[in-house]
Amino acid sequence: MSLKLKPRERDPEASVEGVLRLPSLALHHGGTLAKAELAWRLVGPPRAPIVLAIGGISGHRRVAAEEDGWWAAVVGAGRALDTRHFRVLGIDYLGGSGGSTAPAPGATFPTLSAFDQADAIAALLAAEGLAPLHAVAGASYGGQVALALAARHPALARRLLVLSAADRSHPLASAWRSVEREIVRFGARHGDAAGGLKLARALAMCTYRTPREFAARFGGPAVPANGRLRLPIENYLYARGEAYVARYRPESFVCLSESIDLFRVDPREVPVPTTVVAVPEDQLVPYADLESLVTRLPAGRLVRLESIFGHDAFLKEGEALRPIFADCLEGPAR
Amino acid sequence: MSLKLKPRERDPEASVEGVLRLPSLALHHGGTLAKAELAWRLVGPPRAPIVLAIGGISGHRRVAAEEDGWWAAVVGAGRALDTRHFRVLGIDYLGGSGGSTAPAPGATFPTLSAFDQADAIAALLAAEGLAPLHAVAGASYGGQVALALAARHPALARRLLVLSAADRSHPLASAWRSVEREIVRFGARHGDAAGGLKLARALAMCTYRTPREFAARFGGPAVPANGRLRLPIENYLYARGEAYVARYRPESFVCLSESIDLFRVDPREVPVPTTVVAVPEDQLVPYADLESLVTRLPAGRLVRLESIFGHDAFLKEGEALRPIFADCLEGPAR
Repeated sequence: MSLKLKPRERDPEASVEGVLRLPSLALHHGGTLAKAELAWRLVGPPRAPIVLAIGGISGHRRVAAEEDGWWAAVVGAGRALDTRHFRVLGIDYLGGSGGSTAPAPGATFPTLSAFDQADAIAALLAAEGLAPLHAVAGASYGGQVALALAARHPALARRLLVLSAADRSHPLASAWRSVEREIVRFGARHGDAAGGLKLARALAMCTYRTPREFAARFGGPAVPANGRLRLPIENYLYARGEAYVARYRPESFVCLSESIDLFRVDPREVPVPTTVVAVPEDQLVPYADLESLVTRLPAGRLVRLESIFGHDAFLKEGEALRPIFADCLEGPAR
Repeated sequence: MSLKLKPRERDPEASVEGVLRLPSLALHHGGTLAKAELAWRLVGPPRAPIVLAIGGISGHRRVAAEEDGWWAAVVGAGRALDTRHFRVLGIDYLGGSGGSTAPAPGATFPTLSAFDQADAIAALLAAEGLAPLHAVAGASYGGQVALALAARHPALARRLLVLSAADRSHPLASAWRSVEREIVRFGARHGDAAGGLKLARALAMCTYRTPREFAARFGGPAVPANGRLRLPIENYLYARGEAYVARYRPESFVCLSESIDLFRVDPREVPVPTTVVAVPEDQLVPYADLESLVTRLPAGRLVRLESIFGHDAFLKEGEALRPIFADCLEGPAR
């Protein structure tokens, strides 16, 4: 059952959004989510092939450039994923800070898996008659969800484009994210989860980009500020942290960050043709891990994308991703 | 003026330690440290050539294997820096958690520079008649102090061995350390500086080693613990964090971590023959930064040391460092 919301004036003509309501959702790590809700949004021509576009844990149902979406460099009219030719489906992740079911401050919430996101998406596709999807384009956490969807519900997606995500998280990436979560929990124990989230986000910024990018932007000397010497990089990190606190909830961050680290899928169980985009400079998802993933996928193909933006390449490299999307969207399908 | 302490029973026969007392020390970033004290220790044959051995901010005056020192893999009888043939000088850093002047909890403390450490060391060498040093072997922060000493007091050291330290900190390394300091400050604001230090140390552990080492040690699945799933890497990180809290003070950590990030020296002003050891896998000190350093040193030589231990290579690669120390200690001198 899905409730349609009225398109807003400023939205593209061909957009529609709604909320899927599920009486319950059985969870991958055990337990059940009662009265689960999944907020979704479609943009693009009503009869065009549908592409599910999902990103990092801070991604949400607004994807395209014309709706101020999180993937504006890549999705929109004239972009790599062209909303004049494809209908793009976006979702708010379960557990996230959008319109879907999520943890409340201080309340316990079950451990969420990328497989749970996949099951909720499968229910949405059934309820709205959207299957099979022409493709799933998933980056970072969205790449894990794409792999989970194809493993659990192989008939629902004809092809995958997985960017900067592997069949499991690398222990060093998990280490960084674990510290981020512990900072938020530490803050929460002291009544300041938002203060913890600000620092966690600052730390995350250190992992998304590359040494080369930081050196190019933040090589200047420290300058006096508030009684001590402040480095250029510090202004950047804590401004990003504060901006994040304004739009994301600490509980959601902990929930979905953990979901990334618990993810494990057997690539042999992903029968859908899959293009994997690997960025050698990515500090979170080592290139070798994606080489290894592709050798174990039944129908995998590796594309190397060099980028000074590291893990953030999927957000920044709109032009370089254009031929990669084209090859995938026109390529082999199940 | 220097106060000799009585050697303890368990100490090597030829060891002696003391505390240099300075009425005041003018500081590089401004201000003065009144009644500065520098704790020091010598181990090795009394008439042997003296090598100052200094390491990361957690290093201290006990260096050698036979005194349970922090550089046990490298310094000691039969090691790369052989205490049967060299007399090794160690210090407790100003600002650190040993016997030297350091910030008290809650009290303000001036900004410390590696040049201040160098000036205190120069005063110690004068007071004890130890100059010129046969060599300074400095790793990490100790490498910065070695460069500072040679730039400020070129007559006091005949050669330098600088390991995993550059003429300035890389902005990404500074970003990680800044977040570490902010976590400690965040904890202190909430009355729990120790809790902050535990997390800061856990974060630091993510930067000292390499993705390859973490993957080899911590690739296992999460297991249930305290109501949630816990990753193998998490047990390691927070155990290291707790152990650190037991031996290091939050105020010292913030003080010396900041000192690393504020360091800048002009390599052209380091006239002492310098061997620079660079580890390609080091996440904190990029190899390219050390290549660049050596091209600007008047008498610099680069040695490449590949190590799965990354920034921690200087602590772990005792055998690989043996010929490097030998070449340096017998090599060109000023």
